[in-house]
Amino acid sequence: MQTRISELLAGFFPFWKKLPIQDQEILEGASAIRKYKKGENVHGGGLHCTGVVGIITGRLRVYLLSPEGKEVTLFRLLEHDVCMLSASCLIKNIAFDVYVDAEVDTEIILISPAAYEDVGKRNNFLPAYVQDIITMRFSEAMWVMEQILFMNMDRRLAIFLLEQANIEESDTVSLTHQEIADHMSTAREVVSRMLKYFANEGIVRVSRKGIDIMDRKKLTEKAE
Amino acid sequence: MQTRISELLAGFFPFWKKLPIQDQEILEGASAIRKYKKGENVHGGGLHCTGVVGIITGRLRVYLLSPEGKEVTLFRLLEHDVCMLSASCLIKNIAFDVYVDAEVDTEIILISPAAYEDVGKRNNFLPAYVQDIITMRFSEAMWVMEQILFMNMDRRLAIFLLEQANIEESDTVSLTHQEIADHMSTAREVVSRMLKYFANEGIVRVSRKGIDIMDRKKLTEKAE
Repeated sequence: MQTRISELLAGFFPFWKKLPIQDQEILEGASAIRKYKKGENVHGGGLHCTGVVGIITGRLRVYLLSPEGKEVTLFRLLEHDVCMLSASCLIKNIAFDVYVDAEVDTEIILISPAAYEDVGKRNNFLPAYVQDIITMRFSEAMWVMEQILFMNMDRRLAIFLLEQANIEESDTVSLTHQEIADHMSTAREVVSRMLKYFANEGIVRVSRKGIDIMDRKKLTEKAE
Repeated sequence: MQTRISELLAGFFPFWKKLPIQDQEILEGASAIRKYKKGENVHGGGLHCTGVVGIITGRLRVYLLSPEGKEVTLFRLLEHDVCMLSASCLIKNIAFDVYVDAEVDTEIILISPAAYEDVGKRNNFLPAYVQDIITMRFSEAMWVMEQILFMNMDRRLAIFLLEQANIEESDTVSLTHQEIADHMSTAREVVSRMLKYFANEGIVRVSRKGIDIMDRKKLTEKAE
């Protein structure tokens, strides 16, 4: 009988069907479903090895956090995405740590890193898959770095608002100015000033609910 | 008879002795020694797949470059280091490109990516090695991002000067203020102002030859 967990694992991992049944069973037995409320911390600090995470529903934010509490969002993980940075013990040569929070109520499947490593010893595509994911995240992090170093704040904010609207599947971005500033690793004042400028140009409207995108075409131009 | 190339390859790759002789010969036949003058470009732009690079002597700088000409140094490669970002076709899921320049006269061994890929199909440790290197570079790039986002300019400059003195094996950093600014992705004026402040504290002395470190202990304190 196929359990919910085995169905989920088959959905997350492209190599699942290539695994011998006994190895599938090891991974199934080492997997659990976990629920997190909006804002809860899923993984964080000190190079802990929480495990391999697959997002069933909801959304996770992966970010760097400084000792002084400054943040920058590296990327978000949506349904069907897999997080490997939460399983740093599976990754050779890694020397930095990230924090992972639930941005909305989120359900994940968590696979024990020991089981993943064990099965990976007999099946080369497991470590290869870790590395494919890591390289994708490396690319996403470099995209963030390029934005921070090479782009003006108006362009960065336009890119962020469009991405966020896309994630929220809405024309309203329901975040505070402080939350946007934390994502972008800048000051709240900078975000507020830039939003005021966008509002003056008729691109957005700032309300208590958040930021309404009024002119998507103009916002897209700012982002390009 | 062992050629110079086979000796070099054996020195660079931890897996060399595990390779079958015929695969060693394929890689040897697909490798060449290249020399670059200080300042010459080794790899750059457009996701070219130059190949796997091993540094025999000299030093390479790996950096991001914006369309407007802004730069940031991600890391340096010294003798015995291997560069994989110059062989992006070997790396699944990579979506950014870097530039690589010789910082001093440099001799490298360049391995054709096609041969590396071919041999890698029969020997899993070749793709695994690519990924070990990539993860190390990911960590180095995240360290750069943390410095840029989370640290004050005085601390960043102190870290840079110590690293550079270490690389040059000297107490004099022979770079212009503009070159330091490009490494750190900041403005020349910022570097000059901060160096003046360090000079007033007796930490460095700025001369035509470069920046002399006068008080390594104080500079190390600034970096910590």
